[in-house]
Amino acid sequence: MNIVYKSSPERGAVWAKLLATLAPEANFRQWPDTGNPEEVDYLVAWQPPENLRQQFPNLKVLFSVGAGADQFDYAALPPDLPVVRMIEPGLTSGMVEYVTFAVLGLHRQMPRYLHQQRQQIWHEHASQPASRCRVGVMGVGELGEAALKTLVQLGFDCAGWSRTHKEIAGVASFAGEARLGAFLARTDILICLLPLTAATEGILNASLFNQLPEGAALVQVGRGKHLNQAHLLDALESGQLSAAVLDVTSPEPLPAGHPFWSHPGIWLTPHIASQTQPESAVGALLENIRRYERGEKLTGLVDREKGY
Amino acid sequence: MNIVYKSSPERGAVWAKLLATLAPEANFRQWPDTGNPEEVDYLVAWQPPENLRQQFPNLKVLFSVGAGADQFDYAALPPDLPVVRMIEPGLTSGMVEYVTFAVLGLHRQMPRYLHQQRQQIWHEHASQPASRCRVGVMGVGELGEAALKTLVQLGFDCAGWSRTHKEIAGVASFAGEARLGAFLARTDILICLLPLTAATEGILNASLFNQLPEGAALVQVGRGKHLNQAHLLDALESGQLSAAVLDVTSPEPLPAGHPFWSHPGIWLTPHIASQTQPESAVGALLENIRRYERGEKLTGLVDREKGY
Repeated sequence: MNIVYKSSPERGAVWAKLLATLAPEANFRQWPDTGNPEEVDYLVAWQPPENLRQQFPNLKVLFSVGAGADQFDYAALPPDLPVVRMIEPGLTSGMVEYVTFAVLGLHRQMPRYLHQQRQQIWHEHASQPASRCRVGVMGVGELGEAALKTLVQLGFDCAGWSRTHKEIAGVASFAGEARLGAFLARTDILICLLPLTAATEGILNASLFNQLPEGAALVQVGRGKHLNQAHLLDALESGQLSAAVLDVTSPEPLPAGHPFWSHPGIWLTPHIASQTQPESAVGALLENIRRYERGEKLTGLVDREKGY
Repeated sequence: MNIVYKSSPERGAVWAKLLATLAPEANFRQWPDTGNPEEVDYLVAWQPPENLRQQFPNLKVLFSVGAGADQFDYAALPPDLPVVRMIEPGLTSGMVEYVTFAVLGLHRQMPRYLHQQRQQIWHEHASQPASRCRVGVMGVGELGEAALKTLVQLGFDCAGWSRTHKEIAGVASFAGEARLGAFLARTDILICLLPLTAATEGILNASLFNQLPEGAALVQVGRGKHLNQAHLLDALESGQLSAAVLDVTSPEPLPAGHPFWSHPGIWLTPHIASQTQPESAVGALLENIRRYERGEKLTGLVDREKGY
C-alpha cells in the first residue's frame, strides 16, 4: 500500500517511524515526495493538494489528520472519494482532559480567582457541590460522549444535545431543534463540541446565550465559526455569561489587539484541546485501511449530506 | 445534647438551620451565646476559646470545622479531650475537584498558555498522553486517596507517599522516609496533602525540589508552613520547577507585594480548595456524636503523638 502524508513535516517524521515499525510493508511518503502519483492509494492530510483527482488518479481514501473534516472544500473533491475523520484514542483523551479542566475551572470560579491574584486580592467565594452544577454538551459524538462520561463520574449534573437521542448512563439526552431551548435552560456550563456545518455556523450567538441561566459559562472547543464573537463580548459585559474558555477562534491565530486576548473573563488557548497523537493515530489509520481492503465500513467516514 | 459552634457566623447560621431539621433534639448555639457553660457537651470550632476546661468544664469532644486540626494549640487543651478533624464528603469532593483541575492544568501547560494569552502569543506546545505524566501525592489520607482514584481514572501514572503502605488500585505506594527519594524521582507533578506536623513543616524545600525530575510542577494544598517560599521561587527561576499551583500560604492572606501574587509560573487561590459543606458536615458531626454516645471510635480522631 502507498500512503502519502501532507501536514506538519515534524509530525510526519514521527508517523514515518511508527509506520516503519507497525506496517513495514507500507510505503509511506511525505508530501511533496509522492513517488509515482498513479500508485498512491491513501492520502493523510489536513489540506489535500489542488486537483486531487488529476494529482492522484487512483486514490482510494482521503484521511483527515484531525477530528474534524470541515476544512475540506468538498466541491473540489471527487464526489465518490471516501473522506474519513480521525477517530483515535489520543484525540479523545486529549479532549476529555481539556473539557474536564475547563469545566472544573469554571465550576470552581478559577478565572475569577486568577484575576483576583493579579490584583493581589485574597477573597474567598462560596462554592457549590458538583451535583448542583448543570453541564451541557452540544454535539454528542465520540468526543462529547467521552467527556460526558468523565464529568458524570466527577458528580456533575450532565446533559447532551444532539441530532438523535443518545443513551449514556447518568446523562439526560435532548434531541433535535425542538429540545434545544429546554437543554439550554438547564445548562450552567455549556460545552460546544458540534461539527461545523451550515446549520451550526454562528450557533453560539445572543439568542442562544439568552436561553441559558444568567451567569452561565461557555467552553468552546468546536470550531471558531460556531461563535459570534461580538455577541460573546456583549454577554460577558451584561453578566448573562460569567466566563468563557475558548480553544478555537476565527480566524486562527486570533489577530493582534483582539479583545479576547485581554478579557479577564476569557481563557484562550491556541487550538490545543485535542491533538492527534501519532502513536495511536497510526494504529487507527492502519485499522481503517484494513477495513477498506476487506470492504468493511470505515470508522469516521464523513456523510457529505450531514457535513460530518 | 448541647452543641456550641464557634467559627464564621454566616456558616453557623446554615448549620443551625440544618441541625434544626436533622436533629431537632439538639440544642445548637453560636458563640458567644453558650447557654449554661456547664451543660455544653460538644464544641465545633476553628479556634476554641482560651481556658477551654474552665470555660466548658464538662466538654466531651472538640470538633474542628476543617479537615485539619493543626490550628489548635494542643498544650493549651485538656490532655484527655478528644479532638476530631472534619471528614465529610463535601470536603473530600471539593479537594478532588481542585487537585484534578490543578493536575490537568499543569499536565496541559495551562499556566504557560494563559501567560501567552496575556502577551498575545498564539503558539502551540506538544502535549503528552496522561499515561506518560507521573503524578505523586504526598499524604495519602482520606483526601489523598480520593484524589488518586480520580487521577488514575483520567489515565495518569500515579503514586502515593505516606507513613504506612496504602493499597489503592493502579497507584504505586511508597512508605516511609527511606522511600521518599524514590517517590520524588518518579514524580512530574507533586501534590502536597500532608498534615502539618513538626516532621512536615518546611518539607517543600530546595532539597526536596532537587530530587524531582527537572521541570516538575507542584500542587500545594497542604498547609502554608509546609513550603519554603524562597526555595520555591529559586526552583522556578532555575527551571527545576516549571510551575506551581498554591492554595495555601503562610501567612494567610498573603501580604501585599509578595512575589507569589505576580509570578507568571504561580497560580494562587485563597485557601478554597476544600471548603466544609454544611449539608454534609452536619450529617458527619451527628454521626460522630452518635458514635461517641455509643462508646464507638470517632471518625477523624486526632492522634496527638502523630499530630493528625
